[in-house]
Amino acid sequence: MAQEPLSWTLSEIAEIVGGELHGPPDLKIGRPVPAGYDDSNGITFAESAKYLAAVESSSAAAVIVGLNEVDCTKPHIRCRSPREAFGRLLAIAWRELPLEEGIHPTAIISPNATVERTARIGAYAVVESGAIVGADARVYPFCYVGEQCRLGTGSKLYPNVVLYRDVWIGERSIVHSGAVIGADGFGYFWDGTRHRKVPQVGGVRIGNDCEIGALTAVDRATAGETQIGNGTKLDNLVQVAHNVEIGSDTVIAGQTGISGSSRVGSRVTMGGNVGVGDHVSITDDVVLGARSGVAKDIKEPGQYWGSLAQEAKEGIRASLLASKLPQIVDRINRLEREIAELRSKLL
Amino acid sequence: MAQEPLSWTLSEIAEIVGGELHGPPDLKIGRPVPAGYDDSNGITFAESAKYLAAVESSSAAAVIVGLNEVDCTKPHIRCRSPREAFGRLLAIAWRELPLEEGIHPTAIISPNATVERTARIGAYAVVESGAIVGADARVYPFCYVGEQCRLGTGSKLYPNVVLYRDVWIGERSIVHSGAVIGADGFGYFWDGTRHRKVPQVGGVRIGNDCEIGALTAVDRATAGETQIGNGTKLDNLVQVAHNVEIGSDTVIAGQTGISGSSRVGSRVTMGGNVGVGDHVSITDDVVLGARSGVAKDIKEPGQYWGSLAQEAKEGIRASLLASKLPQIVDRINRLEREIAELRSKLL
Amino acid sequence: MAQEPLSWTLSEIAEIVGGELHGPPDLKIGRPVPAGYDDSNGITFAESAKYLAAVESSSAAAVIVGLNEVDCTKPHIRCRSPREAFGRLLAIAWRELPLEEGIHPTAIISPNATVERTARIGAYAVVESGAIVGADARVYPFCYVGEQCRLGTGSKLYPNVVLYRDVWIGERSIVHSGAVIGADGFGYFWDGTRHRKVPQVGGVRIGNDCEIGALTAVDRATAGETQIGNGTKLDNLVQVAHNVEIGSDTVIAGQTGISGSSRVGSRVTMGGNVGVGDHVSITDDVVLGARSGVAKDIKEPGQYWGSLAQEAKEGIRASLLASKLPQIVDRINRLEREIAELRSKLL
Repeated sequence: MAQEPLSWTLSEIAEIVGGELHGPPDLKIGRPVPAGYDDSNGITFAESAKYLAAVESSSAAAVIVGLNEVDCTKPHIRCRSPREAFGRLLAIAWRELPLEEGIHPTAIISPNATVERTARIGAYAVVESGAIVGADARVYPFCYVGEQCRLGTGSKLYPNVVLYRDVWIGERSIVHSGAVIGADGFGYFWDGTRHRKVPQVGGVRIGNDCEIGALTAVDRATAGETQIGNGTKLDNLVQVAHNVEIGSDTVIAGQTGISGSSRVGSRVTMGGNVGVGDHVSITDDVVLGARSGVAKDIKEPGQYWGSLAQEAKEGIRASLLASKLPQIVDRINRLEREIAELRSKLL
Repeated sequence: MAQEPLSWTLSEIAEIVGGELHGPPDLKIGRPVPAGYDDSNGITFAESAKYLAAVESSSAAAVIVGLNEVDCTKPHIRCRSPREAFGRLLAIAWRELPLEEGIHPTAIISPNATVERTARIGAYAVVESGAIVGADARVYPFCYVGEQCRLGTGSKLYPNVVLYRDVWIGERSIVHSGAVIGADGFGYFWDGTRHRKVPQVGGVRIGNDCEIGALTAVDRATAGETQIGNGTKLDNLVQVAHNVEIGSDTVIAGQTGISGSSRVGSRVTMGGNVGVGDHVSITDDVVLGARSGVAKDIKEPGQYWGSLAQEAKEGIRASLLASKLPQIVDRINRLEREIAELRSKLL
Repeated sequence: MAQEPLSWTLSEIAEIVGGELHGPPDLKIGRPVPAGYDDSNGITFAESAKYLAAVESSSAAAVIVGLNEVDCTKPHIRCRSPREAFGRLLAIAWRELPLEEGIHPTAIISPNATVERTARIGAYAVVESGAIVGADARVYPFCYVGEQCRLGTGSKLYPNVVLYRDVWIGERSIVHSGAVIGADGFGYFWDGTRHRKVPQVGGVRIGNDCEIGALTAVDRATAGETQIGNGTKLDNLVQVAHNVEIGSDTVIAGQTGISGSSRVGSRVTMGGNVGVGDHVSITDDVVLGARSGVAKDIKEPGQYWGSLAQEAKEGIRASLLASKLPQIVDRINRLEREIAELRSKLL
């Protein structure tokens, strides 16, 4: 069943966003686009003269502007918050990946698994024994839901997600394609002649309203659980090692790695490619700039930055100075010459 | 249908590369190998005495050398450019992953998808409604081609690629296994109590002659399109965030991340694990050394390097000096002692 | 066939670990848990007063302690090495992902592939022509085993692994989900107008007792083989480029990248997100701290650290000083003022 292309009239959009129509009511609008993007069926928004200029010189069909905007030559809709109005358009333009009701005939469901009646399981998915797939949950094609895994009400696994076993995911959470949750933690001991594997027998527990990015790995615990709290969002290509515990409403950008047994608090924000060492604890309400490295505990909320993360302003100043070391060393060279000169005069 | 092992005679190879045969014409050659590699069926090349020595002490069957090479005791072929000749051997030795003609009976193709007659679709692939798979395109097993996606003439998706929806890929482009294209961009706003998801409704547009590495993620745009220009190559484990625009003929090495809405020009080269911040613009013909960080616009072509990327020579000098800070601080300590001494003498 | 939940009595566990029982012999134990973890069916271990206090204040059912521990109020088992005893519990608590004997009817096996009688192939796996799957090997669902690949006795491919072609994996090795082995190396040459692909015709050879982490990419060689020696372990999201050679018993943590043609010795340890440049050689018994960068050969065993890796103590000192550059520059400023002052007094 194909979804036909989206389409609204300008007057329908004015109604949806609760704005004032200035233009042909029947103008066909196909989709929201960014300011400056060329799409003769597109509608965008502009909150400043700079963005409005970009819109005017693009082929966009229409634009949402502020209440006092008078210089707009394109068909437009005036409203109090163009940004919020545009967000509402994004919401109505959004379309879920298709997945038919029920269980696809090619899906392989263990007779000992529990799939709620309103859950959807796609083609070529595998659901193992003891797994529970909750109401309205969605398991897209090529997903592997291992033994004793639980997928809560309304949660989704996009195509190609692997849950090894004992992975519990709460409600309304989203796991993007390629994510691997519950693989063995990286644990060995050296027995004098070779690395011996420490069996990894724990699980992973992910809360409600979480999002796990594409190609992100969350390892199972050695024992106990690797934990990710409610409302926490991980971007793509993130590594969460065994026995890590992350609090609630934390946001972690792409390619960041959290090493084993570390704890990250709630409402923490990490930029891209941050690295957190093992057995480190980061308190709540910490902001870590992109590419920061954290080797020891962070006990105070605040902004931090740097390859040995420190208070952000100081960290940025240190980094800027590091990039100016050639000039700094020139100053030291000059000081040494001057001292030598003074010394020769004095002695 | 098995492909039998490759095999040529030395005289066939001399003919292929247009070189002068010095050795038994019927010598069986199985494959090109690197200089110094032990393979009694292998042929390699040597452009210098150093490499020739490595070849001589290996078990390789034969070697391609320059026109003036006389000291070679192995069977050899002399030609003008041994490197180019070796490249020609690589081309004839290369074999595509197998994929039978037509659509595999286990592939699930929406009746509303369009698959050109000469396209090949492998086992357990899924092609959703509105998708178009062009002539001579190849979709290997376990690929998911989402709604409204387009795969141009002669392009390939190796096993296990996911295209979410509205992903357009041009002609002759290659997407390697595990790549995820079109997953949601990482966009939230804090509503005072929790992170709310910004619906991601845009698409991804990838040009002709591109290559997307294994396990690389290219997110869909919030609105509009994430864009990758013709001839651009991304290595493995690269992250391209939503609304990024990359020009043509740009080459980006592994584990690099480009944050949201940034623009990267044409003929740019990035080393491995480079990080580019969000809303940053990098002009054409820029070279960024491995692990560089780019937090602000780069407006001039040239070579850049460093965790706060700067002109490369300066950046390398700064980094070298940073690694010598202990000695630099020793100099400052000494200067302070000397000043104190002078001061005590003077006052 | 469901695996029922694990369960032992405390006396069974005392026997398994060879310890002295202090508590109700019939106490039901469900699983090993970390110290301080709340699980009323859990057993943990404590080697110090600090950990014992954490256990005492948790809901764990029982604890393994040292021979001389007398202050424990929970049911407990005394033994010589609590850590070793706990390791034994991990081993008995561990459960393999389920996979039925034989070849799943949905698996697609080329008639020219060889699958040993005791190998297991899961649902929706694809095994191409010329591939060999050894005795007791396990190929989980959605794995692609390409042409001429070999999987040795007792080795496993967890769900969703891709082996392109000519990938040889030894015995008892483990490849985790999402790993891509044998994708094309990243090789191009600029022909004056565009990047031309260098055909990648080599293979990958992985030894015995190796472990390849989730979402890790190991590229095939341009010619010859990318090599990983016996007993070497790669964590998640690692990039190993074409023609890299890694020795035996080396351990490489997550998100590390090794660029093309580099050599890494045996018994090397790399922390997370290390970067190794191309054509670099690292000798045996080297330890590289997390996030180190290696741009030139490391010829001596030892510990190294830093973005231009150097001897670790020196590298750490340099990094600490780099984070204190603002104060260092303050000292230089003061020196300049003092010199100026002295100079004015003297001249």
